[in-house]
Amino acid sequence: MDRVAIVGASMTPFGDREGEWLRDLLAEAGAACLDDAGVAADAVDHLYVSNMASGELEGQTGAPNMLAHDLAAQPAYTARIDQTSSSGGAGIYAAWQSVASEASEMTLLVGGEKMTHKTTGEATDVIASLTHPVEYKHGVTLPSFAGLTARLYLDEYDAPRESLGKVAVKNHRNGVDNPKAQFRKAVDLDTVLDSPIVADPLRLYDFCPITDGSAALLFCPESVAREITDEYVVVSGVAGATDTHVVHERADPTTMRGVVESSDQAYEMADRSPEDVDFAELHDMFTILEFLQFEDLGFAEKGEGWKAIEEGRTERDGDLPINTSGGLKSKGHPLGASGVAQAVEVYEQLLGEAGDRQLDDPEVGLACNVGGFGNCVTTTILETPEAE
Amino acid sequence: MDRVAIVGASMTPFGDREGEWLRDLLAEAGAACLDDAGVAADAVDHLYVSNMASGELEGQTGAPNMLAHDLAAQPAYTARIDQTSSSGGAGIYAAWQSVASEASEMTLLVGGEKMTHKTTGEATDVIASLTHPVEYKHGVTLPSFAGLTARLYLDEYDAPRESLGKVAVKNHRNGVDNPKAQFRKAVDLDTVLDSPIVADPLRLYDFCPITDGSAALLFCPESVAREITDEYVVVSGVAGATDTHVVHERADPTTMRGVVESSDQAYEMADRSPEDVDFAELHDMFTILEFLQFEDLGFAEKGEGWKAIEEGRTERDGDLPINTSGGLKSKGHPLGASGVAQAVEVYEQLLGEAGDRQLDDPEVGLACNVGGFGNCVTTTILETPEAE
Repeated sequence: MDRVAIVGASMTPFGDREGEWLRDLLAEAGAACLDDAGVAADAVDHLYVSNMASGELEGQTGAPNMLAHDLAAQPAYTARIDQTSSSGGAGIYAAWQSVASEASEMTLLVGGEKMTHKTTGEATDVIASLTHPVEYKHGVTLPSFAGLTARLYLDEYDAPRESLGKVAVKNHRNGVDNPKAQFRKAVDLDTVLDSPIVADPLRLYDFCPITDGSAALLFCPESVAREITDEYVVVSGVAGATDTHVVHERADPTTMRGVVESSDQAYEMADRSPEDVDFAELHDMFTILEFLQFEDLGFAEKGEGWKAIEEGRTERDGDLPINTSGGLKSKGHPLGASGVAQAVEVYEQLLGEAGDRQLDDPEVGLACNVGGFGNCVTTTILETPEAE
Repeated sequence: MDRVAIVGASMTPFGDREGEWLRDLLAEAGAACLDDAGVAADAVDHLYVSNMASGELEGQTGAPNMLAHDLAAQPAYTARIDQTSSSGGAGIYAAWQSVASEASEMTLLVGGEKMTHKTTGEATDVIASLTHPVEYKHGVTLPSFAGLTARLYLDEYDAPRESLGKVAVKNHRNGVDNPKAQFRKAVDLDTVLDSPIVADPLRLYDFCPITDGSAALLFCPESVAREITDEYVVVSGVAGATDTHVVHERADPTTMRGVVESSDQAYEMADRSPEDVDFAELHDMFTILEFLQFEDLGFAEKGEGWKAIEEGRTERDGDLPINTSGGLKSKGHPLGASGVAQAVEVYEQLLGEAGDRQLDDPEVGLACNVGGFGNCVTTTILETPEAE
């Protein structure tokens, strides 16, 4: 079977895009992606929009039809893919299926969310609507799960609180070199550790911000990719999996089964193991999540993930750089865009287009996009065409 | 390539499901579908939910994760597919892609919507949020498009107003024989023609109701279907297409390009022509839409669709029965469920399970699901395995 290739990628600047709406952001990223690939809008036959909550946040639905209109991509088929905070990863999976099933020869995926026009309370309330009603009723929202899990992790595995803070420091430092990041500001460990408490032991700098933004990817069969460019990557593995929807039903809350299951499937599909991965974008909505994913993706034994940051392994000059883009932490987290933007970073790194963040000739990159508190997860592995 | 089969189908009673929520309805339809197929929940590897607006209507998101929880289907991958009123058809296309790409060996699709707890005004306002903002601002909502288009159609093609009324009469009569329909009440032509005006020339009985309900289908490769049952159908064609998002930009508002394009693709995929279709479920959200789809699917020349109802061709004993289920008109229209429920009717007719509505050994059935005012459309062709 022909492999599925990605021939274009783009993202808008992330941050506060006052005066613009989801529609504007999607069109900006979508047009830039087509431009990046040198592909005309009328060549697109499938158009997916990853978005969690435009109806709730803006009172506007039908975003896929609007985007088909704004790009002049009719009669391309369109649909919206929602998997809460992992909608972007789910969109990648939908786009892959669309090409792999031979339904499509050119699929454009655009993820986006417009959030900053709401107060933080309003925006987080929309996010909290994804939790099980019994959790929401008792006030156990995603940040409080993060606090509880961080406390358990630190206790269970004898990890220092500082290790979590160092994740924020690293990802902020990477964000400085990402011109599209929401925060291009380095922070030191004391700033993180002294920031206001949100959910003990986690503090303000352990959390990602509320963000507006959009990101896009263009998919086609590898045979088509070869005809139009020699600058493309292949999707060698992609899979998704769910964990319990009620977080307290998990046998071990420090293990994210959705990460384990989806990455097992993605590795098998790609015929890869964790050792083959040169770098990864992880879903650091909360700093603690970077450790959990690092372990559950097989990069470290359970309880040992925190040592990677202490040893510098996940820095840009380490052996397994994590979140070279700045991560959700400093790049920002426009829900439906985030999973797509993760893959945009992997694409740019693999093609040597990552500017000041560029790694040294990586061949295999991974993106892990987490919905809810690991309720649903997608893992994607991208490679250069000739990766060994 | 292995064909994609449907091995189970179900729908909840449609109507006013007071005291129940989307979550309850999805779980009811999903469990009944698995039961119909004799397949255990843990055999499901992909689980799609077709739903337009649970966040807007109920303040609850994350329905796919909730359903995976309620059916105990973890770690199955889940996502929500939204294409406004054609979310169900988009779900069928997603499920087909998932099996056809060999990502899945068993995909459960459950469509649903909970609407009746809202006032009609609140519910229709959520639906109207799918229109282009410039249309919404001027008060041109879906019912008013229907009125304008009906007026144009009647004038242009010299069709009698009564022909539209007869669509309502036929579909209500079919609904009497559908135990799951919202309205099991025959109406006569005078009742339709004398009902209150909604959007001239259309009256109350030209419109579908606000409905709660859910419907489900179970997909797998035909090779797997053969192992578990001899009662299955195959998806021989499925495709979707968009039309302009701004309705007044259409060259001819009585032609739905999304129907033309998606059915052309679906016929080609199935190696079928309109003449091969034995019966169809069309998206009669408004009576006028049944004529437009009838023509744009190639069942009649443009402007001749209204003659089919006058000649009795679309009745259950006609040569091309339309909406044997009662259609959206009398069965009801829970947005995300409707496209799935159309295919449930086709499945039951093909397998001889349609009870008092049963047609005489049909082999090829078609379902056309319309989003917005034709902004996005999916067409699905189902067949018995041995259809010639």
